[in-house]
Amino acid sequence: MASTDNDRRPKYQKIADSLREAIQSGEYGSGDRLPGENELMATHGVARMTARQALSVLKDEGIAESRKGAGVFVRDFRPLRRRGIQRLSQEQWGNGRSIWSADIENRTLEVDQVRVSEEAAPEHVGLVLDLADDDSVCVRRRRFVLDGKPVLLATSYLPTSVVAGSAITQENTGPGGTYARLAELGYKPVHFREEIRSRMPTREEAAQLSISAGTPVILVCRTAFADDGRPVEINEMTLDAASYILEYDFDA
Amino acid sequence: MASTDNDRRPKYQKIADSLREAIQSGEYGSGDRLPGENELMATHGVARMTARQALSVLKDEGIAESRKGAGVFVRDFRPLRRRGIQRLSQEQWGNGRSIWSADIENRTLEVDQVRVSEEAAPEHVGLVLDLADDDSVCVRRRRFVLDGKPVLLATSYLPTSVVAGSAITQENTGPGGTYARLAELGYKPVHFREEIRSRMPTREEAAQLSISAGTPVILVCRTAFADDGRPVEINEMTLDAASYILEYDFDA
Repeated sequence: MASTDNDRRPKYQKIADSLREAIQSGEYGSGDRLPGENELMATHGVARMTARQALSVLKDEGIAESRKGAGVFVRDFRPLRRRGIQRLSQEQWGNGRSIWSADIENRTLEVDQVRVSEEAAPEHVGLVLDLADDDSVCVRRRRFVLDGKPVLLATSYLPTSVVAGSAITQENTGPGGTYARLAELGYKPVHFREEIRSRMPTREEAAQLSISAGTPVILVCRTAFADDGRPVEINEMTLDAASYILEYDFDA
Repeated sequence: MASTDNDRRPKYQKIADSLREAIQSGEYGSGDRLPGENELMATHGVARMTARQALSVLKDEGIAESRKGAGVFVRDFRPLRRRGIQRLSQEQWGNGRSIWSADIENRTLEVDQVRVSEEAAPEHVGLVLDLADDDSVCVRRRRFVLDGKPVLLATSYLPTSVVAGSAITQENTGPGGTYARLAELGYKPVHFREEIRSRMPTREEAAQLSISAGTPVILVCRTAFADDGRPVEINEMTLDAASYILEYDFDA
Protein backbone atom coordinates (compact mmCIF):
# COMPACT_ATOMS: atom_id res chain seq x y z
CA MET A 1 0.00 0.00 0.00
CA ALA A 2 3.03 2.29 0.34
CA SER A 3 2.75 4.79 -2.48
CA THR A 4 6.29 4.52 -3.77
CA ASP A 5 5.27 6.43 -6.89
CA ASN A 6 4.38 9.51 -4.89
CA ASP A 7 7.45 11.72 -4.78
CA ARG A 8 5.64 14.53 -3.04
CA ARG A 9 5.67 12.72 0.28
CA PRO A 10 7.48 14.76 2.95
CA LYS A 11 11.00 13.51 3.74
CA TYR A 12 10.14 12.13 7.18
CA GLN A 13 7.28 10.19 5.60
CA LYS A 14 9.56 8.67 2.95
CA ILE A 15 12.00 7.57 5.64
CA ALA A 16 9.17 6.17 7.77
CA ASP A 17 7.77 4.32 4.75
CA SER A 18 11.12 2.75 3.90
CA LEU A 19 11.68 1.67 7.50
CA ARG A 20 8.15 0.22 7.61
CA GLU A 21 8.83 -1.74 4.43
CA ALA A 22 12.10 -3.04 5.89
CA ILE A 23 10.18 -4.22 8.96
CA GLN A 24 7.42 -5.81 6.92
CA SER A 25 9.93 -7.59 4.70
CA GLY A 26 11.65 -9.03 7.77
CA GLU A 27 14.90 -7.06 7.37
CA TYR A 28 14.27 -5.84 10.91
CA GLY A 29 12.66 -8.47 13.09
CA SER A 30 10.68 -8.29 16.29
CA GLY A 31 12.83 -6.68 19.02
CA ASP A 32 15.52 -5.43 16.60
CA ARG A 33 16.95 -1.97 17.08
CA LEU A 34 16.08 0.47 14.28
CA PRO A 35 18.61 3.02 12.97
CA GLY A 36 18.77 5.95 15.41
CA GLU A 37 18.45 9.64 14.66
CA ASN A 38 22.17 10.03 13.95
CA GLU A 39 22.20 7.15 11.50
CA LEU A 40 19.07 8.37 9.72
CA MET A 41 20.58 11.89 9.49
CA ALA A 42 23.75 10.49 7.89
CA THR A 43 22.02 7.99 5.59
CA HIS A 44 19.30 10.31 4.33
CA GLY A 45 21.03 13.68 4.67
CA VAL A 46 18.26 15.14 6.81
CA ALA A 47 18.03 17.27 9.95
CA ARG A 48 17.58 15.73 13.38
CA MET A 49 13.93 16.86 13.56
CA THR A 50 13.17 15.03 10.31
CA ALA A 51 14.80 11.84 11.57
CA ARG A 52 12.91 12.16 14.84
CA GLN A 53 9.61 12.69 13.02
CA ALA A 54 10.19 9.58 10.91
CA LEU A 55 10.69 7.46 14.02
CA SER A 56 7.63 9.08 15.62
CA VAL A 57 5.47 7.95 12.73
CA LEU A 58 6.39 4.31 13.41
CA LYS A 59 5.93 4.73 17.15
CA ASP A 60 2.51 6.30 16.63
CA GLU A 61 1.50 3.37 14.46
CA GLY A 62 2.54 0.99 17.25
CA ILE A 63 5.17 -0.68 15.03
CA ALA A 64 8.16 0.58 17.02
CA GLU A 65 8.80 1.64 20.59
CA SER A 66 11.42 3.71 22.39
CA ARG A 67 13.43 2.15 25.16
CA LYS A 68 15.00 4.69 27.46
CA GLY A 69 18.61 5.35 26.58
CA ALA A 70 18.75 2.36 24.23
CA GLY A 71 17.05 3.56 21.06
CA VAL A 72 13.97 2.68 19.05
CA PHE A 73 13.07 -0.99 18.59
CA VAL A 74 10.69 -3.00 16.45
CA ARG A 75 7.85 -3.81 18.73
CA ASP A 76 7.47 -7.39 19.79
CA PHE A 77 4.07 -8.14 18.30
CA ARG A 78 3.21 -11.70 19.12
CA PRO A 79 -0.51 -11.42 19.53
CA LEU A 80 -2.93 -13.90 20.97
CA ARG A 81 -5.21 -15.39 18.38
CA ARG A 82 -8.65 -15.37 19.95
CA ARG A 83 -10.90 -17.76 18.03
CA GLY A 84 -14.27 -16.17 18.71
CA ILE A 85 -16.52 -19.05 17.83
CA GLN A 86 -14.57 -22.21 18.64
CA ARG A 87 -13.56 -20.98 22.08
CA LEU A 88 -17.19 -20.64 23.14
CA SER A 89 -18.30 -24.02 21.82
CA GLN A 90 -19.92 -26.21 24.41
CA GLU A 91 -17.17 -28.79 23.91
CA GLN A 92 -14.85 -26.34 25.57
CA TRP A 93 -16.62 -25.26 28.79
CA GLY A 94 -18.88 -28.36 28.79
CA ASN A 95 -15.75 -30.44 29.41
CA GLY A 96 -14.46 -28.41 32.32
CA ARG A 97 -11.99 -26.32 30.34
CA SER A 98 -11.73 -22.59 30.70
CA ILE A 99 -12.80 -20.77 27.53
CA TRP A 100 -9.63 -18.70 27.90
CA SER A 101 -7.47 -21.80 27.56
CA ALA A 102 -8.52 -22.00 23.90
CA ASP A 103 -6.61 -18.82 23.11
CA ILE A 104 -3.21 -19.35 24.45
CA GLU A 105 -1.46 -22.21 22.73
CA ASN A 106 1.72 -22.70 24.77
CA ARG A 107 1.72 -19.44 26.62
CA THR A 108 0.72 -18.46 30.11
CA LEU A 109 -2.49 -16.49 30.51
CA GLU A 110 -3.35 -15.88 34.13
CA VAL A 111 -5.92 -13.96 36.08
CA ASP A 112 -3.97 -11.71 38.43
CA GLN A 113 -6.92 -9.72 39.76
CA VAL A 114 -10.46 -10.90 40.56
CA ARG A 115 -13.15 -8.93 42.33
CA VAL A 116 -16.66 -10.27 42.71
CA SER A 117 -19.43 -8.10 44.12
CA GLU A 118 -23.18 -7.63 44.16
CA GLU A 119 -24.13 -4.24 42.76
CA ALA A 120 -27.00 -2.25 41.35
CA ALA A 121 -27.14 -2.93 37.62
CA PRO A 122 -25.76 -0.14 35.39
CA GLU A 123 -28.57 1.17 33.22
CA HIS A 124 -27.38 -0.34 29.92
CA VAL A 125 -26.84 -3.72 31.61
CA GLY A 126 -30.29 -3.66 33.21
CA LEU A 127 -31.86 -2.93 29.83
CA VAL A 128 -30.14 -5.83 28.05
CA LEU A 129 -30.67 -8.31 30.89
CA ASP A 130 -34.29 -7.11 31.16
CA LEU A 131 -34.04 -6.42 34.90
CA ALA A 132 -36.46 -4.55 37.14
CA ASP A 133 -35.21 -1.27 38.63
CA ASP A 134 -34.26 -2.79 41.97
CA ASP A 135 -32.74 -6.04 40.65
CA SER A 136 -29.06 -6.36 41.39
CA VAL A 137 -26.29 -8.06 39.41
CA CYS A 138 -23.29 -10.17 40.28
CA VAL A 139 -20.26 -8.32 38.87
CA ARG A 140 -17.06 -10.24 38.20
CA ARG A 141 -14.06 -8.02 37.37
CA ARG A 142 -10.92 -9.75 36.21
CA ARG A 143 -7.58 -8.79 34.75
CA PHE A 144 -5.71 -11.27 32.54
CA VAL A 145 -1.94 -11.25 32.22
CA LEU A 146 -0.08 -12.89 29.31
CA ASP A 147 3.61 -13.69 29.70
CA GLY A 148 3.67 -11.18 32.56
CA LYS A 149 1.94 -8.33 30.67
CA PRO A 150 -1.70 -7.33 31.37
CA VAL A 151 -3.65 -7.79 28.12
CA LEU A 152 -7.33 -7.90 29.01
CA LEU A 153 -9.83 -6.44 31.48
CA ALA A 154 -13.13 -8.31 31.67
CA THR A 155 -16.21 -7.23 33.59
CA SER A 156 -19.03 -9.74 33.61
CA TYR A 157 -22.60 -8.98 34.76
CA LEU A 158 -25.09 -11.72 35.70
CA PRO A 159 -28.55 -11.36 37.30
CA THR A 160 -28.36 -12.01 41.05
CA SER A 161 -31.70 -13.81 40.75
CA VAL A 162 -30.00 -16.39 38.52
CA VAL A 163 -26.62 -16.85 40.19
CA ALA A 164 -27.23 -16.24 43.92
CA GLY A 165 -25.65 -18.98 46.05
CA SER A 166 -23.70 -20.54 43.15
CA ALA A 167 -19.94 -20.67 42.62
CA ILE A 168 -20.39 -17.81 40.11
CA THR A 169 -20.47 -15.50 43.13
CA GLN A 170 -17.09 -16.89 44.29
CA GLU A 171 -13.69 -15.84 42.96
CA ASN A 172 -13.11 -19.38 41.69
CA THR A 173 -16.10 -20.56 39.66
CA GLY A 174 -14.78 -24.14 39.30
CA PRO A 175 -14.18 -26.37 36.26
CA GLY A 176 -15.60 -24.96 33.02
CA GLY A 177 -16.19 -21.63 34.74
CA THR A 178 -19.28 -19.44 34.69
CA TYR A 179 -20.85 -21.11 31.64
CA ALA A 180 -20.65 -24.61 33.11
CA ARG A 181 -22.24 -23.27 36.32
CA LEU A 182 -25.00 -21.46 34.37
CA ALA A 183 -25.77 -24.78 32.64
CA GLU A 184 -26.12 -26.50 36.04
CA LEU A 185 -28.47 -23.75 37.15
CA GLY A 186 -30.72 -24.42 34.13
CA TYR A 187 -29.49 -21.45 32.07
CA LYS A 188 -27.15 -23.14 29.64
CA PRO A 189 -25.77 -20.56 27.20
CA VAL A 190 -26.68 -21.68 23.69
CA HIS A 191 -26.09 -18.51 21.73
CA PHE A 192 -23.60 -15.65 21.89
CA ARG A 193 -23.37 -12.20 20.38
CA GLU A 194 -20.08 -10.34 20.33
CA GLU A 195 -19.91 -6.64 19.45
CA ILE A 196 -16.51 -5.22 18.65
CA ARG A 197 -15.37 -1.60 18.67
CA SER A 198 -12.05 0.11 18.94
CA ARG A 199 -10.95 3.42 20.44
CA MET A 200 -8.04 4.97 22.32
CA PRO A 201 -7.84 3.84 25.94
CA THR A 202 -8.85 6.03 28.83
CA ARG A 203 -5.90 6.87 31.06
CA GLU A 204 -7.19 4.38 33.61
CA GLU A 205 -7.36 1.59 31.01
CA ALA A 206 -3.92 2.47 29.70
CA ALA A 207 -2.55 2.23 33.24
CA GLN A 208 -4.30 -1.05 34.04
CA LEU A 209 -3.15 -2.64 30.78
CA SER A 210 0.34 -1.00 30.71
CA ILE A 211 -0.46 0.16 27.19
CA SER A 212 2.23 1.96 25.21
CA ALA A 213 1.45 5.35 23.71
CA GLY A 214 -0.28 5.14 20.36
CA THR A 215 -1.97 1.79 21.01
CA PRO A 216 -5.75 1.55 20.93
CA VAL A 217 -7.99 -0.85 22.84
CA ILE A 218 -10.46 -3.27 21.31
CA LEU A 219 -13.78 -3.45 23.15
CA VAL A 220 -15.66 -6.73 22.96
CA CYS A 221 -19.14 -6.78 24.48
CA ARG A 222 -20.50 -10.29 24.66
CA THR A 223 -24.06 -11.26 25.49
CA ALA A 224 -24.80 -14.91 26.33
CA PHE A 225 -28.32 -16.20 25.71
CA ALA A 226 -30.03 -19.24 27.27
CA ASP A 227 -32.27 -21.62 25.38
CA ASP A 228 -35.43 -19.53 25.74
CA GLY A 229 -33.60 -16.49 24.28
CA ARG A 230 -33.10 -14.98 27.72
CA PRO A 231 -29.84 -12.97 28.02
CA VAL A 232 -28.01 -14.35 31.07
CA GLU A 233 -24.66 -12.60 30.98
CA ILE A 234 -23.03 -9.47 29.61
CA ASN A 235 -19.25 -9.49 29.51
CA GLU A 236 -17.51 -6.20 28.68
CA MET A 237 -13.91 -6.80 27.70
CA THR A 238 -11.14 -4.27 27.07
CA LEU A 239 -8.21 -5.70 25.12
CA ASP A 240 -4.77 -4.26 24.47
CA ALA A 241 -5.00 -4.08 20.66
CA ALA A 242 -1.28 -4.84 20.30
CA SER A 243 -1.81 -8.17 22.05
CA TYR A 244 -4.73 -9.63 20.14
CA ILE A 245 -5.98 -10.86 16.81
CA LEU A 246 -9.66 -11.78 16.93
CA GLU A 247 -10.67 -14.54 14.57
CA TYR A 248 -14.15 -15.60 13.47
CA ASP A 249 -14.66 -18.62 11.24
CA PHE A 250 -18.08 -19.32 9.79
CA ASP A 251 -19.96 -20.79 6.85
CA ALA A 252 -21.69 -18.86 4.07
CA MET B 1 -15.66 1.90 35.68
CA ALA B 2 -14.76 5.46 36.72
CA SER B 3 -12.89 5.21 39.98
CA THR B 4 -14.85 7.84 41.85
CA ASP B 5 -13.35 6.57 45.10
CA ASN B 6 -9.85 7.47 43.98
CA ASP B 7 -9.18 11.00 45.22
CA ARG B 8 -5.60 10.97 44.02
CA ARG B 9 -6.60 11.41 40.39
CA PRO B 10 -5.10 14.58 38.92
CA LYS B 11 -7.57 17.46 38.60
CA TYR B 12 -7.79 17.34 34.81
CA GLN B 13 -8.60 13.64 35.06
CA LYS B 14 -11.41 14.23 37.56
CA ILE B 15 -12.92 16.86 35.26
CA ALA B 16 -12.55 14.57 32.24
CA ASP B 17 -14.16 11.71 34.17
CA SER B 18 -17.13 13.82 35.23
CA LEU B 19 -17.65 15.07 31.66
CA ARG B 20 -17.41 11.51 30.36
CA GLU B 21 -20.04 10.38 32.85
CA ALA B 22 -22.30 13.25 31.84
CA ILE B 23 -21.96 12.15 28.21
CA GLN B 24 -22.57 8.51 29.01
CA SER B 25 -25.63 9.35 31.08
CA GLY B 26 -27.04 11.34 28.17
CA GLU B 27 -26.78 14.75 29.86
CA TYR B 28 -24.76 15.78 26.79
CA GLY B 29 -25.98 14.15 23.62
CA SER B 30 -24.36 13.52 20.29
CA GLY B 31 -23.35 16.84 18.72
CA ASP B 32 -23.87 18.86 21.91
CA ARG B 33 -21.34 21.50 22.85
CA LEU B 34 -19.33 20.72 25.99
CA PRO B 35 -18.40 23.41 28.52
CA GLY B 36 -15.41 25.37 27.20
CA GLU B 37 -12.14 26.15 28.93
CA ASN B 38 -13.50 29.33 30.53
CA GLU B 39 -16.55 27.53 31.92
CA LEU B 40 -14.45 24.65 33.27
CA MET B 41 -12.02 27.14 34.87
CA ALA B 42 -14.90 28.90 36.62
CA THR B 43 -16.82 25.76 37.64
CA HIS B 44 -13.85 23.79 38.91
CA GLY B 45 -11.55 26.63 40.00
CA VAL B 46 -8.67 25.39 37.84
CA ALA B 47 -6.09 26.96 35.52
CA ARG B 48 -6.62 27.14 31.77
CA MET B 49 -4.03 24.40 31.14
CA THR B 50 -5.94 22.03 33.43
CA ALA B 51 -9.22 22.74 31.67
CA ARG B 52 -7.53 22.25 28.32
CA GLN B 53 -5.99 18.96 29.42
CA ALA B 54 -9.38 17.69 30.59
CA LEU B 55 -10.89 18.37 27.17
CA SER B 56 -7.85 16.78 25.51
CA VAL B 57 -8.50 13.54 27.36
CA LEU B 58 -11.97 13.31 25.84
CA LYS B 59 -10.70 14.26 22.39
CA ASP B 60 -7.95 11.64 22.59
CA GLU B 61 -10.53 9.01 23.49
CA GLY B 62 -12.54 9.99 20.42
CA ILE B 63 -15.56 10.98 22.54
CA ALA B 64 -15.32 14.68 21.73
CA GLU B 65 -13.99 16.78 18.89
CA SER B 66 -12.93 20.39 18.42
CA ARG B 67 -14.66 22.49 15.81
CA LYS B 68 -12.64 25.50 14.79
CA GLY B 69 -13.77 28.62 16.58
CA ALA B 70 -16.90 26.93 17.91
CA GLY B 71 -15.69 24.82 20.83
CA VAL B 72 -15.58 21.17 21.77
CA PHE B 73 -18.51 18.95 20.89
CA VAL B 74 -19.68 15.45 21.73
CA ARG B 75 -18.75 13.41 18.75
CA ASP B 76 -21.53 12.16 16.56
CA PHE B 77 -21.01 8.44 16.95
CA ARG B 78 -23.63 6.73 14.86
CA PRO B 79 -21.70 3.68 13.78
CA LEU B 80 -22.58 1.15 11.16
CA ARG B 81 -23.45 -2.20 12.65
CA ARG B 82 -21.64 -4.74 10.50
CA ARG B 83 -23.17 -8.16 11.10
CA GLY B 84 -20.21 -10.36 10.26
CA ILE B 85 -21.96 -13.64 9.73
CA GLN B 86 -25.43 -12.77 8.38
CA ARG B 87 -24.05 -10.38 5.76
CA LEU B 88 -22.01 -13.14 4.15
CA SER B 89 -24.78 -15.73 4.11
CA GLN B 90 -25.51 -17.13 0.72
CA GLU B 91 -29.06 -15.78 0.94
CA GLN B 92 -27.55 -12.34 0.61
CA TRP B 93 -25.20 -12.52 -2.39
CA GLY B 94 -26.95 -15.61 -3.80
CA ASN B 95 -30.01 -13.40 -4.40
CA GLY B 96 -28.19 -10.64 -6.21
CA ARG B 97 -27.79 -8.34 -3.22
CA SER B 98 -24.55 -6.66 -2.32
CA ILE B 99 -23.12 -7.94 0.95
CA TRP B 100 -22.55 -4.31 1.89
CA SER B 101 -26.28 -3.60 1.70
CA ALA B 102 -26.74 -5.74 4.83
CA ASP B 103 -24.90 -3.18 6.93
CA ILE B 104 -26.53 0.04 6.20
CA GLU B 105 -30.16 0.04 7.31
CA ASN B 106 -31.52 3.29 5.89
CA ARG B 107 -28.27 5.02 5.16
CA THR B 108 -26.29 5.58 2.00
CA LEU B 109 -23.11 3.57 1.63
CA GLU B 110 -21.48 4.17 -1.72
CA VAL B 111 -18.30 3.19 -3.46
CA ASP B 112 -16.67 6.44 -4.55
CA GLN B 113 -13.37 4.95 -5.78
CA VAL B 114 -12.78 1.66 -7.60
CA ARG B 115 -9.54 0.54 -9.17
CA VAL B 116 -9.14 -2.91 -10.67
CA SER B 117 -5.77 -4.15 -11.86
CA GLU B 118 -3.75 -7.27 -12.51
CA GLU B 119 -0.63 -7.34 -10.34
CA ALA B 120 2.07 -9.62 -9.01
CA ALA B 121 0.77 -11.14 -5.77
CA PRO B 122 2.18 -9.63 -2.58
CA GLU B 123 4.09 -12.33 -0.71
CA HIS B 124 1.57 -12.86 2.12
CA VAL B 125 -1.29 -13.04 -0.40
CA GLY B 126 0.55 -15.57 -2.57
CA LEU B 127 1.17 -17.74 0.48
CA VAL B 128 -2.47 -17.80 1.58
CA LEU B 129 -3.86 -18.26 -1.95
CA ASP B 130 -1.21 -20.94 -2.56
CA LEU B 131 0.06 -19.31 -5.77
CA ALA B 132 3.19 -20.08 -7.75
CA ASP B 133 5.84 -17.36 -7.86
CA ASP B 134 4.80 -16.01 -11.24
CA ASP B 135 1.01 -16.23 -10.71
CA SER B 136 -0.69 -12.86 -10.76
CA VAL B 137 -3.76 -11.65 -8.88
CA CYS B 138 -6.72 -9.48 -9.71
CA VAL B 139 -6.67 -6.59 -7.22
CA ARG B 140 -9.86 -4.65 -6.53
CA ARG B 141 -9.33 -1.49 -4.48
CA ARG B 142 -12.43 0.30 -3.29
CA ARG B 143 -13.30 3.12 -0.96
CA PHE B 144 -16.73 3.21 0.71
CA VAL B 145 -18.38 6.43 1.78
CA LEU B 146 -21.19 6.60 4.34
CA ASP B 147 -23.39 9.68 4.48
CA GLY B 148 -20.63 11.52 2.61
CA LYS B 149 -17.75 10.43 4.89
CA PRO B 150 -15.19 7.79 3.82
CA VAL B 151 -15.43 4.90 6.31
CA LEU B 152 -13.78 1.89 4.69
CA LEU B 153 -10.94 0.95 2.35
CA ALA B 154 -11.15 -2.56 0.91
CA THR B 155 -8.50 -4.30 -1.16
CA SER B 156 -9.51 -7.66 -2.53
CA TYR B 157 -7.09 -10.18 -4.10
CA LEU B 158 -8.26 -13.05 -6.33
CA PRO B 159 -6.15 -15.47 -8.40
CA THR B 160 -6.04 -14.36 -12.04
CA SER B 161 -6.27 -18.04 -13.01
CA VAL B 162 -9.72 -18.13 -11.39
CA VAL B 163 -11.23 -14.78 -12.39
CA ALA B 164 -9.68 -13.94 -15.80
CA GLY B 165 -12.32 -12.86 -18.31
CA SER B 166 -15.12 -12.62 -15.71
CA ALA B 167 -16.95 -9.50 -14.49
CA ILE B 168 -14.75 -9.67 -11.37
CA THR B 169 -12.05 -7.98 -13.46
CA GLN B 170 -14.48 -5.14 -14.27
CA GLU B 171 -15.28 -2.18 -12.03
CA ASN B 172 -18.90 -3.32 -11.83
CA THR B 173 -19.08 -7.00 -10.92
CA GLY B 174 -22.87 -7.21 -11.44
CA PRO B 175 -25.73 -8.43 -9.18
CA GLY B 176 -24.51 -10.21 -6.03
CA GLY B 177 -20.98 -9.00 -6.72
CA THR B 178 -17.75 -10.96 -6.62
CA TYR B 179 -19.16 -13.89 -4.63
CA ALA B 180 -22.04 -14.49 -7.03
CA ARG B 181 -19.54 -14.44 -9.94
CA LEU B 182 -17.16 -16.83 -8.12
CA ALA B 183 -20.09 -19.23 -7.70
CA GLU B 184 -20.80 -19.06 -11.45
CA LEU B 185 -17.13 -19.82 -12.11
CA GLY B 186 -17.37 -22.97 -9.98
CA TYR B 187 -15.70 -21.49 -6.89
CA LYS B 188 -18.68 -20.79 -4.68
CA PRO B 189 -17.48 -19.42 -1.32
CA VAL B 190 -18.81 -21.71 1.41
CA HIS B 191 -16.64 -20.67 4.34
CA PHE B 192 -15.14 -17.42 5.60
CA ARG B 193 -12.52 -16.47 8.11
CA GLU B 194 -12.28 -12.93 9.42
CA GLU B 195 -9.27 -11.74 11.41
CA ILE B 196 -9.62 -8.49 13.29
CA ARG B 197 -6.91 -6.20 14.62
CA SER B 198 -6.74 -2.57 15.57
CA ARG B 199 -3.99 0.04 15.43
CA MET B 200 -3.48 3.72 14.75
CA PRO B 201 -3.82 4.63 11.07
CA THR B 202 -0.86 5.40 8.87
CA ARG B 203 -0.89 8.99 7.63
CA GLU B 204 -2.04 7.75 4.25
CA GLU B 205 -4.96 5.81 5.76
CA ALA B 206 -5.90 8.78 7.95
CA ALA B 207 -5.99 10.99 4.85
CA GLN B 208 -7.98 8.53 2.75
CA LEU B 209 -10.54 7.97 5.52
CA SER B 210 -10.59 11.60 6.80
CA ILE B 211 -9.96 10.21 10.26
CA SER B 212 -9.92 12.61 13.20
CA ALA B 213 -6.90 12.67 15.50
CA GLY B 214 -7.00 10.03 18.18
CA THR B 215 -9.11 7.56 16.20
CA PRO B 216 -7.75 4.10 15.43
CA VAL B 217 -8.54 1.88 12.47
CA ILE B 218 -9.94 -1.63 12.64
CA LEU B 219 -8.32 -4.05 10.20
CA VAL B 220 -10.45 -6.93 8.97
CA CYS B 221 -8.71 -9.53 6.86
CA ARG B 222 -11.20 -11.93 5.33
CA THR B 223 -10.36 -15.15 3.51
CA ALA B 224 -13.10 -16.84 1.45
CA PHE B 225 -12.86 -20.60 0.90
CA ALA B 226 -14.49 -22.69 -1.84
CA ASP B 227 -16.03 -26.12 -1.30
CA ASP B 228 -12.76 -28.03 -1.60
CA GLY B 229 -11.15 -25.81 1.05
CA ARG B 230 -9.35 -23.73 -1.54
CA PRO B 231 -8.90 -20.08 -0.54
CA VAL B 232 -10.28 -17.99 -3.43
CA GLU B 233 -10.19 -14.45 -2.11
CA ILE B 234 -8.39 -12.34 0.45
CA ASN B 235 -10.02 -9.05 1.32
CA GLU B 236 -8.04 -6.61 3.45
CA MET B 237 -10.28 -3.94 4.92
CA THR B 238 -9.36 -0.81 6.85
CA LEU B 239 -12.26 0.68 8.81
CA ASP B 240 -12.58 4.02 10.55
CA ALA B 241 -13.09 2.69 14.09
CA ALA B 242 -15.41 5.58 14.96
CA SER B 243 -17.77 4.50 12.18
CA TYR B 244 -18.21 0.82 12.91
CA ILE B 245 -19.44 -1.76 15.37
CA LEU B 246 -18.66 -5.30 14.23
CA GLU B 247 -21.14 -7.89 15.37
CA TYR B 248 -20.79 -11.68 15.35
CA ASP B 249 -23.72 -13.88 16.36
CA PHE B 250 -23.16 -17.60 16.81
CA ASP B 251 -24.27 -20.70 18.69
CA ALA B 252 -22.42 -22.41 21.52
